[in-house]
Amino acid sequence: MSSKKPLTKAQKLQYDKKYSEKKSLYIPKKYFVIAIIILLAASYKLYFFKSEDVTPKVDLEQWWGSYPMSEIDTSIRPFTIEFSDIKVNDLKERLLHRAPFAPPLDSAGFSYGFNSLFLPKVLDFWQKEYNFEERERFLNKYNHFITGIQGLDVHYMHVKPDLGDGGDITVIPILLIHGWPGSIREFYELIPKLVTPRPNHKFVFEVIAPSIPGFGYSQAPTQQGMGPQEVAVVFYNLMKRIGYSKYYVQGGNYGAKIGSAMATLFPDAVLGFHTNTPSVMWSPMAVFYTLIGTIWPSFIVEPSIADRMYPLSQYLTTIIQETGHFHIQATKPDTVGIALSDSPAGLAAYILEKFSAWTDKENKQAIDGALLQKFSLTHLLDNVMIYWTTNSITSSMRHYTEYKQLLDLDRIPTDVPTWGIKFKHNLFFQPDSILRLKYRNYLHSSIVEDGGHFAAMELPDVLADDIFDAVDTFIKFHEEKKKNEPKSEPTQSNAQQTESAKKPTESAKKPTESAKGQTESAKKQTDSAKKPTESAKEPKESAKEPTESAKQPTQVDYMKAKSVHEFTVKDIHGNEVKLDRYKGQVLIIVNVASQCGYTDGHYKQLNELYEKYSTKGLRILAFPCNQFGYQEPGTPQEILQFTKAKQVKFDLFEKVAVNGADAHPLWNFLKRMQGGTLGDFVKWNFSKFIVDKNGVPVERFGPNTDPLELVPYLEKLFDQ
Amino acid sequence: MSSKKPLTKAQKLQYDKKYSEKKSLYIPKKYFVIAIIILLAASYKLYFFKSEDVTPKVDLEQWWGSYPMSEIDTSIRPFTIEFSDIKVNDLKERLLHRAPFAPPLDSAGFSYGFNSLFLPKVLDFWQKEYNFEERERFLNKYNHFITGIQGLDVHYMHVKPDLGDGGDITVIPILLIHGWPGSIREFYELIPKLVTPRPNHKFVFEVIAPSIPGFGYSQAPTQQGMGPQEVAVVFYNLMKRIGYSKYYVQGGNYGAKIGSAMATLFPDAVLGFHTNTPSVMWSPMAVFYTLIGTIWPSFIVEPSIADRMYPLSQYLTTIIQETGHFHIQATKPDTVGIALSDSPAGLAAYILEKFSAWTDKENKQAIDGALLQKFSLTHLLDNVMIYWTTNSITSSMRHYTEYKQLLDLDRIPTDVPTWGIKFKHNLFFQPDSILRLKYRNYLHSSIVEDGGHFAAMELPDVLADDIFDAVDTFIKFHEEKKKNEPKSEPTQSNAQQTESAKKPTESAKKPTESAKGQTESAKKQTDSAKKPTESAKEPKESAKEPTESAKQPTQVDYMKAKSVHEFTVKDIHGNEVKLDRYKGQVLIIVNVASQCGYTDGHYKQLNELYEKYSTKGLRILAFPCNQFGYQEPGTPQEILQFTKAKQVKFDLFEKVAVNGADAHPLWNFLKRMQGGTLGDFVKWNFSKFIVDKNGVPVERFGPNTDPLELVPYLEKLFDQ
Repeated sequence: MSSKKPLTKAQKLQYDKKYSEKKSLYIPKKYFVIAIIILLAASYKLYFFKSEDVTPKVDLEQWWGSYPMSEIDTSIRPFTIEFSDIKVNDLKERLLHRAPFAPPLDSAGFSYGFNSLFLPKVLDFWQKEYNFEERERFLNKYNHFITGIQGLDVHYMHVKPDLGDGGDITVIPILLIHGWPGSIREFYELIPKLVTPRPNHKFVFEVIAPSIPGFGYSQAPTQQGMGPQEVAVVFYNLMKRIGYSKYYVQGGNYGAKIGSAMATLFPDAVLGFHTNTPSVMWSPMAVFYTLIGTIWPSFIVEPSIADRMYPLSQYLTTIIQETGHFHIQATKPDTVGIALSDSPAGLAAYILEKFSAWTDKENKQAIDGALLQKFSLTHLLDNVMIYWTTNSITSSMRHYTEYKQLLDLDRIPTDVPTWGIKFKHNLFFQPDSILRLKYRNYLHSSIVEDGGHFAAMELPDVLADDIFDAVDTFIKFHEEKKKNEPKSEPTQSNAQQTESAKKPTESAKKPTESAKGQTESAKKQTDSAKKPTESAKEPKESAKEPTESAKQPTQVDYMKAKSVHEFTVKDIHGNEVKLDRYKGQVLIIVNVASQCGYTDGHYKQLNELYEKYSTKGLRILAFPCNQFGYQEPGTPQEILQFTKAKQVKFDLFEKVAVNGADAHPLWNFLKRMQGGTLGDFVKWNFSKFIVDKNGVPVERFGPNTDPLELVPYLEKLFDQ
Repeated sequence: MSSKKPLTKAQKLQYDKKYSEKKSLYIPKKYFVIAIIILLAASYKLYFFKSEDVTPKVDLEQWWGSYPMSEIDTSIRPFTIEFSDIKVNDLKERLLHRAPFAPPLDSAGFSYGFNSLFLPKVLDFWQKEYNFEERERFLNKYNHFITGIQGLDVHYMHVKPDLGDGGDITVIPILLIHGWPGSIREFYELIPKLVTPRPNHKFVFEVIAPSIPGFGYSQAPTQQGMGPQEVAVVFYNLMKRIGYSKYYVQGGNYGAKIGSAMATLFPDAVLGFHTNTPSVMWSPMAVFYTLIGTIWPSFIVEPSIADRMYPLSQYLTTIIQETGHFHIQATKPDTVGIALSDSPAGLAAYILEKFSAWTDKENKQAIDGALLQKFSLTHLLDNVMIYWTTNSITSSMRHYTEYKQLLDLDRIPTDVPTWGIKFKHNLFFQPDSILRLKYRNYLHSSIVEDGGHFAAMELPDVLADDIFDAVDTFIKFHEEKKKNEPKSEPTQSNAQQTESAKKPTESAKKPTESAKGQTESAKKQTDSAKKPTESAKEPKESAKEPTESAKQPTQVDYMKAKSVHEFTVKDIHGNEVKLDRYKGQVLIIVNVASQCGYTDGHYKQLNELYEKYSTKGLRILAFPCNQFGYQEPGTPQEILQFTKAKQVKFDLFEKVAVNGADAHPLWNFLKRMQGGTLGDFVKWNFSKFIVDKNGVPVERFGPNTDPLELVPYLEKLFDQ
């Protein structure tokens, strides 16, 4: 994970210089661009930039099979992958009789696409060395099933943990969704790591990994219009069929889009969404943020990883370079599909090029695309075999034609807790500030200084560890939420569940996974799905940065509070302080940091304010926070020593988180009452909230506003 | 050609409403967008929107073959197209053993790409009915040659006219450049129509149709970097090799880009550029104009064909829909090339889909893409055969990776006279106002209410007629230009030619087309290339709208004139009027029309001005003009009758053209002296130029300025 060095203001400015567009550093033009952005923002705010709160209605029974509709088999049937002799022999023939390919341009490497001098090595291996029988056995190592949903036979793998003596471990269902040009093969190395209990976790996973309809062993739709939203419905029905009403979802690439759609459409079913491709593709507000970042990168993205996104022109060049397939698949999938269905060489080149370019864009320089540095040819060809033997490349590509849906779907926020892991060389990158536009409970980003787009195959250990960490946090999130819910009313999610149970879609036949000892799974899984919330009462012992908020005594619900006086905090010495002691006083509540560029000026002026107005009833409540540039890394003692040197006389509290899942309820309350310009979250150190004598937050100012500029606002309140 | 109905102002407003973006009709937002555009324009004018006047330097000897360089055969050698038995048998095998293709989605037609239910018909025909021997003979019906240029063997067809008894006919060389996914096959129906003398034309063509390097029979470059600019150099060298220093160029699609590059880089060699894909892809100013048109379409494009471009969102949707191949070929040509080289079915689908979608976008609705409505399968497969037998699809697609050149090249204006023909269903459309940004002598657009992107194969007659018309006009253009050049100095083009002759590239061997009686061609062609300018003295008798300007007596050169007093015009009765009669008077020169929305107001106020200020020396010179919305269609008598009814007392002149090749020199002078806001051309009826007592145009106003608003400007001049 990333090294966390505190940054001075000078360093921050340097970062801004380094990653912003060079052109815009020319001052007059810079301000011109700002003016344009503000004008645009002002004008479009009302309808264009606004996120939609209306979740689209979905048809849970939409039919994807051919017409006239016929009865489909909704039982859960075991399935076996087969590489038939006929298929294999035909494949070998085609590989043998491949046409001569055009020689590459001099020194082209992979920069014009798959290098035709390297390709024969892949094709020869496939034809002569790839062990079809052994690989068929390998792919069948997990239990496969098929069941009819909405007119299609949907395939999935179902892998349960080996609990041994059982013990105190909860089994948690997780849906793993593959991407394009991937398949269920992506998860073969990851699955064992998820279904094996770990000493420091009280839970373990049970994995459901389906093939997306039109990919591999799930039937392709016959009707037009299946995109991520429609797949989300199919998978929601699939999970219901297996017996799950609540579960976690993990996905990357297209799987992330489907997972995101599930979190948006079925927030009561998805307990948490983990993704290795966290992105908000189309939201206009995301575009707006991205543009802001071209001027002040550090406002949008943490400086330490700003180079993943800025300079923007460089980032966009890479995106354009790597999305030609997207464009053609979104418009003419059937055309390019003809050639890819007819030529295994063409199919292998088309798929494997992505495993080179998306794992690290520098790979393009190498004549072999550095393909075998991270992957074995056998593993890569397993995946190609799934496409070839099922003739599913065309139907897989057709999903891109429905991508326009995301225009709408990415604008609809979801409250499902979400966690992203950002691998260094992944094609797409977006900062948390943008992700929070869509994922209102975006809890955390794990920054990894390695790895690329195909994380499950490239770095399964890192991915598995992160999924465990994420679900740990998701459980805690739900636990907190449950605490804050009044106990008399039934919880909303249960109510909705009852509601949805009234509309069975294809539940005529009682589904059972009869094969391989999976009977009764439905009931069992429902039980286990309910467990996490209970079992998560145990405090978790992860190696995460301590934020102390976990130690807080039971807090009021910040969604219902009316005054800061209802909250309790801890002072810098660890003593509990009930804020009702500040009744009748005017407060400035501010998050501080010792190493920020704003530190000196703010401490000086806050002191000045306090000296001048404390007799009028001003109190200043300073909360150290290490969430912005890691500029408050010290212990309480170090902070005390620092503020002493600054001759601080106002009230200092214990270090808190002000954003994210661990944010102190007081700060959540402040943010709720006084939203911010670009989202409610606190943007940087020294955000200042003014609270009136009744404990109501009435003003909010960013670090750019000097404390002395608050005087007029304060004076109004003193006189009230 | 288009029906030309006069439009009232109300109609024009209706057009604007119909084709502008609906959103922007909401008034406040509309003005907001305008403000943004103006701000943008103001800010970027200095560096961003400006067209570049610096022609890039090209290396006439750049080497495209493999290294180490070896001597290449620069002689001109006859060439024969061959469909070898081995190739043909292998092809038939592949077609027979094609894999099963994914079935199309229900009711998909061609909207997801080539329909796999129709494809077998194409493939079966190719395998069983296409007569390989007969087609090989057919393709060899013209003379083919090969010669070594810059390290590559370059192929071309050379077809000379059969002059019969000769007579007074001049032979004019024309270079025909094919596009992607086309080939020399595009021109087989067109060529006979160009090399056959016509009764009403004093010239006939001699056709040179090369294969672009990497397409068909021209060798593919081994080095990176060959785009339209580099092909332009190769073809310039090719024409020189054959013996041409001056010639006309015709091209569509990629051929248009190469032709445009030749006109830009070699303005002394290209006598005129004719294109069926007139476009300026990347110029920022073109983008700016296009955006302006989203608010006022009629300002940018003639209302009668506004629906080809606006609403812009609709146009852009089509462009995005039809440019997936562009995106993938510009980034990963070698990847998709593998499959297309290995699968003739895939290649046919990939190429023929374009012949469906680009001929008419409505074709996508049909299950057979309406492919055979306009083309015969034999002809289409001839073209596919050229790609398949030469294995050149990959190298042809690589040209797209160099398209970024056009970013620069499209911004550099050229003075080479240019003529576009706009077929109704062509994928790309741009109005003349945008084309003139690049082609400063864009003489004419032919509007055709039929046809699509592949004009030479679809409507060879229409295209041939238009090329004859265009070259007629080009000849006239050069004749005019020559007249206006002082005779003592050597012409610039000759001087440059001598210059270029000093740098022979590969002229070591004296090139001769030895085969099939083409010896001596070099000398003869050079002669004929010089002839057009002389022979064009004959007035042409085309069926074009009469603008009368051709009857003008010899005029002064408007580029050198200093005062309007030097010009001669004709009054409405046909009498010559030397404008020096207006010496010492202040003039308003205005183009008028009887059916314009501005007509009533302007005539009224012009009368008012004249009555009030004629005693102070004001004279108003009104020139009827039918170039804007065809709102002055009448005869001189009709115009007179109309102005009489309006009680016009000021001076009325004969109808003129104010824009384009036929523009009256007086108006060219006015435009030169008083340039316009968005290009110098006159934008609409009732453009008003104020001329001082010395005959110097000092002010210019558009139709939005009422005549009475001119008073302050006039009064200043009366007192001088």
